[in-house]
Amino acid sequence: MKNLVGACIFGQSGGPTSVINSSAAGVFIEALEQKNITKVYGAANGIKGILDEKFYDIGQEDKNELLLLKNTPSSALGSVRYKLKDVKDDETDYKRILEVFKKYNIRYFFYNGGNDSMDTCNKISKYLLNCGYECNIIGVPKTIDNDLYGTDHCPGYGSAAKYVATTMMEIFLDATVYNNGQVSIVEIMGRNAGWLTAAASLASLKGYGPDLIYLPEQAFDVDKFLKQVKEVVDKNNGKCIVALSEGIKTKDGLYVAEAIAKNAASKDSFGHTQLGGVAATLANLVKEKIGGKVRAIEFSLMQRCGAHLASKVDVEEAFNAGRTAVREACNGNTDKMVVFTRENSKEYKIKYELMNIELAANTEKKVPDSWILPDNKGLSHEYYEYALPLIQGDCKAPLEDGLPRFAHLKKVLVK
Amino acid sequence: MKNLVGACIFGQSGGPTSVINSSAAGVFIEALEQKNITKVYGAANGIKGILDEKFYDIGQEDKNELLLLKNTPSSALGSVRYKLKDVKDDETDYKRILEVFKKYNIRYFFYNGGNDSMDTCNKISKYLLNCGYECNIIGVPKTIDNDLYGTDHCPGYGSAAKYVATTMMEIFLDATVYNNGQVSIVEIMGRNAGWLTAAASLASLKGYGPDLIYLPEQAFDVDKFLKQVKEVVDKNNGKCIVALSEGIKTKDGLYVAEAIAKNAASKDSFGHTQLGGVAATLANLVKEKIGGKVRAIEFSLMQRCGAHLASKVDVEEAFNAGRTAVREACNGNTDKMVVFTRENSKEYKIKYELMNIELAANTEKKVPDSWILPDNKGLSHEYYEYALPLIQGDCKAPLEDGLPRFAHLKKVLVK
Repeated sequence: MKNLVGACIFGQSGGPTSVINSSAAGVFIEALEQKNITKVYGAANGIKGILDEKFYDIGQEDKNELLLLKNTPSSALGSVRYKLKDVKDDETDYKRILEVFKKYNIRYFFYNGGNDSMDTCNKISKYLLNCGYECNIIGVPKTIDNDLYGTDHCPGYGSAAKYVATTMMEIFLDATVYNNGQVSIVEIMGRNAGWLTAAASLASLKGYGPDLIYLPEQAFDVDKFLKQVKEVVDKNNGKCIVALSEGIKTKDGLYVAEAIAKNAASKDSFGHTQLGGVAATLANLVKEKIGGKVRAIEFSLMQRCGAHLASKVDVEEAFNAGRTAVREACNGNTDKMVVFTRENSKEYKIKYELMNIELAANTEKKVPDSWILPDNKGLSHEYYEYALPLIQGDCKAPLEDGLPRFAHLKKVLVK
Repeated sequence: MKNLVGACIFGQSGGPTSVINSSAAGVFIEALEQKNITKVYGAANGIKGILDEKFYDIGQEDKNELLLLKNTPSSALGSVRYKLKDVKDDETDYKRILEVFKKYNIRYFFYNGGNDSMDTCNKISKYLLNCGYECNIIGVPKTIDNDLYGTDHCPGYGSAAKYVATTMMEIFLDATVYNNGQVSIVEIMGRNAGWLTAAASLASLKGYGPDLIYLPEQAFDVDKFLKQVKEVVDKNNGKCIVALSEGIKTKDGLYVAEAIAKNAASKDSFGHTQLGGVAATLANLVKEKIGGKVRAIEFSLMQRCGAHLASKVDVEEAFNAGRTAVREACNGNTDKMVVFTRENSKEYKIKYELMNIELAANTEKKVPDSWILPDNKGLSHEYYEYALPLIQGDCKAPLEDGLPRFAHLKKVLVK
């Protein structure tokens, strides 16, 4: 527990979200106010910016622009996907980081990301502890996947969930407008955890939900899928809406698009992999086996950068997560990640706490089996009670010429 | 010019938009106030509902729910794609419509749609005029394609354009976040006219626009496209964002996906059509010929039903277009379509006027060549001046549980 005096550096890592910059705003605004923090740096492209000694002097930014970061999607400093090697295999990067930290007297390090980024943060933390270099290090969670261990939920999830639920409602109205039916297959992000796809079920609360939902938590059976779609189509005048995770796999552990391509290869003479994602692949299969009009829809990048539809709760929590990281580090905490603990009260309320960062690194939290209704009918009320508080309220950038006014940072490079 | 006394019926036709229901609200609220209109009906699934004698008694709806229609996307009454035969080939449908109109004493008919729907409206109008059945008929324009002749712009376009421009800004921030580049190819609706794809250029005004834009107004050359993408990729560290219309065609008049499949067929032994849309097809081609990370993104149904991002100007104009149709019909006008005329003033202002409906039927308005910059660099300032006023302001459904509260109509069937 040391109250260190020195510079701080903040980096963003992994896939963008609508609110990762809100955490940045929280970190920057709090750090600029802390008297023990002598300089505030933002690393360009996460850990890469530290290795390359490429970072920005945040003290030169306008406060209003820093506040606009709250409603600016993606990662304003640039992001990175870079996995540090184990220190026992290769110490090069670690030595370089120590060198840079010493050169700029960096005594506070904040890193914002998902599982892999927390792994990076954990490795650096352990290395510096071992070297005896004093630096307080706190991870700030973010991921639309919501799969980080030890926190009630992750910043970024609420806004992405709000995008998915709202857009699902709109698509429902659009896709069922004609007398004659259409099968719509909506593909939602989430490689291993189905949290974001589960959010499609929130549209059901309003009467505009998908008929069938497939999460990666459960093995996907192509024949069962076709049977289930056929049942809905027969009952519902050809109309059927399906929501599924990009990461659904068969019981053999193959991604569905791979499995279907493999199966097709054994049956025809082509054998080359189908184009497109799982929704497109299944749409073709439904067209072939059931017939009728079929449309594949991918929420693609929009679901993670649709800041115009951010949840106010999410924006504020992401901001507070950043602030908390700085405050706790200034109180002498290190080697931790900020987590959200939901209070056991009638009104939704969370506490910002700290957890040992190694617990967060590389552990995935899945949707509980007991929350998944049988026969792909959607999610249980436990999920609704969990997710609804996270999508409340609107919070978006002010309009300028009818379009969002995002933050403009000067990004003055530190020489 | 007759001030008729009798019932009115309103129908929605063609693809949904974010504001087609706002026009419905305008028609219903005005019609319920007009003393010459004895009953207000809404046809289920457009002209099909009239032929099937399936329509709703709008007088039984709650006024608040009718007002919520302003922010409810898609077509609340259901839509239809049904082309009336020429009366000289087959009079059956026309006789049936006359029969239904007589049975319910329908003296006002309002039809909301694009080119094809205005063709339907025109044919019915001419038939009833020929029969001497007095009925005032006014078409209400709508289409995200913005391709109707004789009107400055169409209700539905402003909101779809706002969706495209805003989402393009967000995607720009997302797709350029990593140090290493990515080619993103965004597919936007518009079979024959590039108005909606042109809206992607509005993001450039804010510094977040696509590098290259391809409209169906100009023949698409695959080799030129690859060369242009390569140039941007080389200059811009692998980053390139492309916006293109689903309807782009080669100089031989083939859709690009067809043309590429045909070309591939002559070169390999497969010869079957590629899956997916034009963005997916071109993404595969870029991957093969240029390499690197490539992502195809389709705005799909979201661009036309994203009412959460509707333009206030569009919502209000759509509403007023509906009101105007009813008022003008009650003033004795018939055989017309409502059009918008832009006043020649500094402040954006439109007048609601009437045009002979046969002029609107089946004529397409394209983006002027002079507004398209050379080398697919985007649109000129004339386009910006034209389009910016149409995307101003926000107007969306109130939130309930963090999700939009859309209109709930009782839809009481008329027996």
